[in-house]
Amino acid sequence: MMRLVCCCSALLLLVLTPRVCQGGNILVLPAEGSHWVNMDIVLQALHSRGHSLTVVRSNKSWYIKEKAPHYTTITVQVERSIDESFIAKVVSEGLAFERGSLPLTHFLYSAFGMLGVFREAHEIVGDFASALLDDAELVTRIKDKKFDLLLTDPCWGGGAIVAKYFHLPLVYNVRWLIAMEAHLAIAPSPLSYIPINLSGNTDKMTFFQRVKNMILHIMSHLQNNIASRDIYQKVCEKYLGPDCDYYQLMIDADIWLLRTDFVFDYPRPTMPNVIYMGGFQCKPAKPLPQHLEDFVQSSGDHGFIIMSLGTFVSELPADLANEIAATFAKLPQKVIWRYKGEKPDTLGNNTLLVDWMPQNDLLGHPKIKLFVAHGGTNGIQEALYHGVPVVGIPLFFDQYDNILRLADRGGAKILSVATMDKDDNFLKAIQEVLTEPSYRNNMQRLSRLHRDKPVTPMDNALFWMEFVMRHKGAAHLKAQGNRMPWYSYHSVDVALFLVGALILLLFTVFFLLRCLCAAVCKRKAKRD
Amino acid sequence: MMRLVCCCSALLLLVLTPRVCQGGNILVLPAEGSHWVNMDIVLQALHSRGHSLTVVRSNKSWYIKEKAPHYTTITVQVERSIDESFIAKVVSEGLAFERGSLPLTHFLYSAFGMLGVFREAHEIVGDFASALLDDAELVTRIKDKKFDLLLTDPCWGGGAIVAKYFHLPLVYNVRWLIAMEAHLAIAPSPLSYIPINLSGNTDKMTFFQRVKNMILHIMSHLQNNIASRDIYQKVCEKYLGPDCDYYQLMIDADIWLLRTDFVFDYPRPTMPNVIYMGGFQCKPAKPLPQHLEDFVQSSGDHGFIIMSLGTFVSELPADLANEIAATFAKLPQKVIWRYKGEKPDTLGNNTLLVDWMPQNDLLGHPKIKLFVAHGGTNGIQEALYHGVPVVGIPLFFDQYDNILRLADRGGAKILSVATMDKDDNFLKAIQEVLTEPSYRNNMQRLSRLHRDKPVTPMDNALFWMEFVMRHKGAAHLKAQGNRMPWYSYHSVDVALFLVGALILLLFTVFFLLRCLCAAVCKRKAKRD
Repeated sequence: MMRLVCCCSALLLLVLTPRVCQGGNILVLPAEGSHWVNMDIVLQALHSRGHSLTVVRSNKSWYIKEKAPHYTTITVQVERSIDESFIAKVVSEGLAFERGSLPLTHFLYSAFGMLGVFREAHEIVGDFASALLDDAELVTRIKDKKFDLLLTDPCWGGGAIVAKYFHLPLVYNVRWLIAMEAHLAIAPSPLSYIPINLSGNTDKMTFFQRVKNMILHIMSHLQNNIASRDIYQKVCEKYLGPDCDYYQLMIDADIWLLRTDFVFDYPRPTMPNVIYMGGFQCKPAKPLPQHLEDFVQSSGDHGFIIMSLGTFVSELPADLANEIAATFAKLPQKVIWRYKGEKPDTLGNNTLLVDWMPQNDLLGHPKIKLFVAHGGTNGIQEALYHGVPVVGIPLFFDQYDNILRLADRGGAKILSVATMDKDDNFLKAIQEVLTEPSYRNNMQRLSRLHRDKPVTPMDNALFWMEFVMRHKGAAHLKAQGNRMPWYSYHSVDVALFLVGALILLLFTVFFLLRCLCAAVCKRKAKRD
Repeated sequence: MMRLVCCCSALLLLVLTPRVCQGGNILVLPAEGSHWVNMDIVLQALHSRGHSLTVVRSNKSWYIKEKAPHYTTITVQVERSIDESFIAKVVSEGLAFERGSLPLTHFLYSAFGMLGVFREAHEIVGDFASALLDDAELVTRIKDKKFDLLLTDPCWGGGAIVAKYFHLPLVYNVRWLIAMEAHLAIAPSPLSYIPINLSGNTDKMTFFQRVKNMILHIMSHLQNNIASRDIYQKVCEKYLGPDCDYYQLMIDADIWLLRTDFVFDYPRPTMPNVIYMGGFQCKPAKPLPQHLEDFVQSSGDHGFIIMSLGTFVSELPADLANEIAATFAKLPQKVIWRYKGEKPDTLGNNTLLVDWMPQNDLLGHPKIKLFVAHGGTNGIQEALYHGVPVVGIPLFFDQYDNILRLADRGGAKILSVATMDKDDNFLKAIQEVLTEPSYRNNMQRLSRLHRDKPVTPMDNALFWMEFVMRHKGAAHLKAQGNRMPWYSYHSVDVALFLVGALILLLFTVFFLLRCLCAAVCKRKAKRD
């Protein structure tokens, strides 16, 4: 009897007929901040495939440089932008809140507390789209360039309007669609097993967790509508005519390159034009710079730990930073901590503070033992790719849900920023994940699943962008349901009609029976 | 400015780390007839990848040979089987009916007329599964072989029970799941734009087409339940215990290799463990046998036509066969007609009757002009792959819907078998498709879309079967919704709870207001 060990997919993947190649011409409408970091990785890959890229940015752009070797830019003049100070305000408010929050207030804050901030951001983005389409010179320049594709991150709106205005096929590099998890907009989403963002639920819910899930879904739907819908609808009507429906326009993109996959996320309904590229940025580790390599090698058999709370959280309150440093000082491992704040007094000799670190290369290093992370998607995907267990300290947005997905599969431990500095919670969590082998084994198993795909996520994303350029869209993959009003989509009209018809039928039968009965009784009465 | 012509996906598709290869051990539970033809193509591919295959067949098997170079067999002793005479009965009844049908009777016949026949077939298949699991010697043989995977076609039931009994990961080679289009069982299916089989609808429906779609869905659901549910539930309970739910077991397969794709089918919700392998059997044409090559070459610039009504329809009523032959005789093209009946009197010199033809090679021949087909999935997929326009004469099952998908995209013309022999309908249809270039252009466009995939359908199918063997299943791709009762899945309980809570709240508020009002009125009355 033959036994299967594992199989040679290198032989398996015969590729379809090769095609002669010539670069496409791509217009890019990115989002700022960490979303730009993601987009730029895709742009570099597109550039290396010979495509020509034009990035639309604002004169107040925060992350997006005007000059870069792999793209040219179009700069739109604006008054306001989503910049560092804007984000810093959101982050510090959110962090202060998280440290003092109770479950109920947390829940309400999540759903409505950020409403004003979000609305302001949507106004800024709506103004940006208007400024672009009002600028006759920019419009002419874009028309003259005869682009093949508009690539955008729809976490803020506007991209779909610009694509429609210039008649360009539309591809999303997406995880959030105007603060809504992208699937919720494009695919049927049974709330009975699809956990809503910020619910703290997994795909296995009790009855009351399902009730919470439903309520939170309705609230976030309301929140989204209040915070953004009229803003983009106005822009839409101004440039595309009064019949334009922004929501239908938004969900009718040709291809959705979704920054997740079903090793990270729970399995759920999806659509034919959704392509999963979760982990597209991950790659095998490169050698470390010499000083870092020396530092991690000095850890001996204990190995080393890295900690990062992401791009936005560069500083922490002094008491919290001291508590973290003191905990690290008690460990036999070496620690590399990405932190820009003042050096904590309690910092031990085993801990190296850095402004920036080659996170992917460190996570792929043989001596890595643990990743202390805030739960941003990029870091979590890198941990998954390299199979490194995580102690997660989620702060806001999707971070709790991200770490929950690893914790639920036994690869991570979640700590609350509100209680991590009490009762040695942080130390206990680190020691548990370091000493209990299941954490590492589970992450390694997830890593094997994540890497075992017929085509790498980035290659798949590139294939589908080029597919859209070759065929001038992907209309055959866009469901008819995208173009239906909600009552038709959900067959509400048909159900009402059928129930009405049934009631009418029953009444008729009842009426006829009564007439018949009456007639019979009458005849009987006459006979008697 | 660079212009995109088309791109070199050969370069793009870097494959993930190659893996050392050793053959897996696969148990196969196929269906008979044309379904076996499909399955056998997959088995040959698996065999050529070094896997060891064991096919379970009955001693009365019709299509599945006991000895073959690429698999061994296990033969189950049965009394009855779905054999040639059984199918011939269905086909002749169906054909006679089609020729005389009115829309309403057709509709009812489709939904209920075949009920008895289907129930008989399910009983035969249920008995087959029981006979296998009752045979202690076969059970021991299967256990000893330590299979890695059970591969089955679930158009009839039983496979899921056998997989569960032997604790084997389960892969479906599937289009129909117990007479239901497979998607309807596994993925959410908004009936507002998903045409139900036999409805004659496309994905763009009028209000009354949607009403018909809904009614037909309810009826076919009932039909399926009446025809099969209790049969398999009994087998399930007998071998897996009283708590077993056959429906949940059936939809919980690890991977569904679906014999369709979204060039052929309308885009609709899907699931992460559904892999589309439509057109897996298609390949570039091989040279024709000399006598056929000489025959088609003799057609000159007119080219040639092929006609086949599939595996099951080997004969036609004499009047119909004569009418078809007479029509062909009027054409300047050469015709190759797969027909086993008596030679029609009206047969022209330009028409060659054959028992069998190399259909794929003929469809890929440069001189092919038209395919006259009954609309079986295999033939339609081959026409799509080679971009050949179709005149379709659907007979039963999914054939009308299959051709409708091509016709709706402008690549085919549909003829009814009831009226094709009247008013030169057949001749007119052939001439229209031959002379109007849009038919060919549309099929060529569909062919380009169909062929433009990152991995060929067969390679993708092989990858996922080997994935399941490498990881002992694909639990991470199976949705939690598969394991929920329907009222929880659809959040009926949560909705009732929330509506109840809302009503209670409103009543309480109303009651309090009334009390308040009464108190105020009382005080006022006292004061007055």
